[in-house]
Amino acid sequence: MPEQTKTEHLSGGLDVAEAQACILEKLAPLGVEQVVLERALGRVLAADVLANRDLPPCDVSAMDGYAVRAADVTAAPVALKMVDDIKAGDTPKTAVAAGQCARIMTGAPVPQGADSVVRVEDTRALPDGSIEFAVVAKPGNDIRLRGENMRVGDVALSVGTEITPAVVGALAAVKAATATVYRLPSVAILANGDELEALDEPFDPARIPDSNTWALLAQTQAQGIEPTRLGIARDKPEELARHLERGLQYDVLLVAGGTSVGVHDHVRPVLEKLGVVMHFWRVEMRPGHPIAFGTTERGIVFCLPGNPVSAMVCFEQFVLPALRALTGHRTLFRRTLAARLTQPVKSRPGRVEFVRVTLTQEADGSYAATPVGAQGSADVLAMARAEGLLIAPREGKGLPAGAIAPVQLLDGATFQRAAEIER
Amino acid sequence: MPEQTKTEHLSGGLDVAEAQACILEKLAPLGVEQVVLERALGRVLAADVLANRDLPPCDVSAMDGYAVRAADVTAAPVALKMVDDIKAGDTPKTAVAAGQCARIMTGAPVPQGADSVVRVEDTRALPDGSIEFAVVAKPGNDIRLRGENMRVGDVALSVGTEITPAVVGALAAVKAATATVYRLPSVAILANGDELEALDEPFDPARIPDSNTWALLAQTQAQGIEPTRLGIARDKPEELARHLERGLQYDVLLVAGGTSVGVHDHVRPVLEKLGVVMHFWRVEMRPGHPIAFGTTERGIVFCLPGNPVSAMVCFEQFVLPALRALTGHRTLFRRTLAARLTQPVKSRPGRVEFVRVTLTQEADGSYAATPVGAQGSADVLAMARAEGLLIAPREGKGLPAGAIAPVQLLDGATFQRAAEIER
Repeated sequence: MPEQTKTEHLSGGLDVAEAQACILEKLAPLGVEQVVLERALGRVLAADVLANRDLPPCDVSAMDGYAVRAADVTAAPVALKMVDDIKAGDTPKTAVAAGQCARIMTGAPVPQGADSVVRVEDTRALPDGSIEFAVVAKPGNDIRLRGENMRVGDVALSVGTEITPAVVGALAAVKAATATVYRLPSVAILANGDELEALDEPFDPARIPDSNTWALLAQTQAQGIEPTRLGIARDKPEELARHLERGLQYDVLLVAGGTSVGVHDHVRPVLEKLGVVMHFWRVEMRPGHPIAFGTTERGIVFCLPGNPVSAMVCFEQFVLPALRALTGHRTLFRRTLAARLTQPVKSRPGRVEFVRVTLTQEADGSYAATPVGAQGSADVLAMARAEGLLIAPREGKGLPAGAIAPVQLLDGATFQRAAEIER
Repeated sequence: MPEQTKTEHLSGGLDVAEAQACILEKLAPLGVEQVVLERALGRVLAADVLANRDLPPCDVSAMDGYAVRAADVTAAPVALKMVDDIKAGDTPKTAVAAGQCARIMTGAPVPQGADSVVRVEDTRALPDGSIEFAVVAKPGNDIRLRGENMRVGDVALSVGTEITPAVVGALAAVKAATATVYRLPSVAILANGDELEALDEPFDPARIPDSNTWALLAQTQAQGIEPTRLGIARDKPEELARHLERGLQYDVLLVAGGTSVGVHDHVRPVLEKLGVVMHFWRVEMRPGHPIAFGTTERGIVFCLPGNPVSAMVCFEQFVLPALRALTGHRTLFRRTLAARLTQPVKSRPGRVEFVRVTLTQEADGSYAATPVGAQGSADVLAMARAEGLLIAPREGKGLPAGAIAPVQLLDGATFQRAAEIER
């Protein structure tokens, strides 16, 4: 049975989730390195980070205002004598006694005796120099207690945390000038095909410009990884073998083109000759069929379709979660939102269809998805207009207008035109 | 009246949308430069890009299969004689006559005489070398017509297009080895406050570690801009003036701290002495109040709150759209999704409240938002756990559990844990 399953995987097609599981079960983070805080954004913590101090270091004011004894300000208005003026960074020398107050700045230590802060907007200075309070003070008001945000020895940030801007701030708060993170994989990208014209080759109207390796380069860059472009291998087995052998020195090799069932496709036998164990060759999806995945002792190989859009969609579904798993991320998949289709989409029964769509937001905050004009798998210009990939299920022949379906948000869809903030 | 409005802006507070409009109406892209395609990701096209060729360059096969005359395959099964074998990149030499077919690869030119392609899965080779077709062929089937994706001279990509991975692919398709893009602004970040301890200063339990400049650094980096950290200015007017003068040499200066109404806050008078025209000093929002915006002849200044979370939230609402406008983006604001609150949130009437939340996705694809434990404006650790900012409106005193509200997706929220692909 296992043998049969294996054969079935190799000849028939997995579904997308099965293929993702097949890939991800074979992957783990590659190793650990130190980065300085300036270069930490987007990486993933490979070790817990402990708090090295209490934050705040003592009870401090949360506002610019006056530190008071709440018992003195139970009715308003009331006037108190000002006995000190405490700035952030000061150590208060004077205790606040009954009938007294101290001017205090945001972040400044609350002086002895005081148990409440009244913000400056709710006060006014009287001609005699005393301060009049227009509101009552509750104990603890606008005071941040020592250790409220962080206590010495606490796990401030745990292993597996993605280093977002706020995490960079938190690392600085515990004085972590460097961070221990998972290392990034080395990635190589190779195109395959006699018909391809490289960017630096002279214009030949009969050939197809290589856009695949460039789109894959940028998709990889968007994950913070700088890949190596190995160029274009022509359809000769020796040349292909030389390129593939070089590519297999990397942690991840992406091969675009030359992977379908056509007789001129040499990639598969050459990879197998080079010791790559192939785990599947087809996934029941469109575009993107065929897509293959293999492993060696040191790395992994994805064989992606030659059509640019198919290659990009396959990268999204398989390479992206793999790169994220290798770099230690816990969130592996594109965020999806539910969107209502503005027009019907057709799909081929038995295959998940990834429909390139643009998104518009309705007044209630929900989304409508409109397929971009051409859904041809070679039309990189149409792909360039898409904001998301709408997932039409395997069952049935498509979705009617008005159907709700998940849409994966693509790079470039993080921002939108209008803010949604009421006046 | 205009004078009164101006005064009101300076003393009272704008709402968030008014403040955004006040900023954005003063900004335009800064200029234009050339970048090589390897460095183009995330930038914005400053000129239309024209197609330099027809794509595909001629009628080509969309599949691996056989090129036929559809009139020969009106019933199945039927066998045809194979007369040629056409690879991608070939120029076919033999026309397909009645009763004949040619093996053809994806992307290969359709030979003269043929008007349809039958995919290889729907055929088999017979012992005599002829090919048997199991399905009928319709004219035009699986053929991509010359110029279907792009025609010479068409605007392939228009000015203002963000260079996503697919756009990088499209640029390669028109052989654009460089792109004309809007230049990035220079950004300087300055912290202000006697209580602040720099990352490279010795640990002092009584002081507050500077996390602000680091979070702001990373928020700026996340936009593809490498800012300059000017360090920490202490609360002495001369030192502050020296730092601010240096900061005003940049296109954008971010000053964190020292901007509230407290008497020790020197930033405002010093900026005004240095020739900065301040447009507002308060916005009715929480956290984030106070936040100020000014302009000089060469650049812009944001004065952000000293509390790390407030500073980050203000960056999100004001600095981010400004940086995106300066770099030519048409999408200026964080994408929002509608989410259901899992618990009530309180807010102060008259101020929009930005509630730090985590997101969970329901089975139907909709989202639930849960406030992160502490909503204190100094708690950068809580901010580090947030995936989004839920916007509670100015009216009323908050939102009940179950209310639906827009959530801005923060950096790090682009990905999620589970895929949403049915098997």
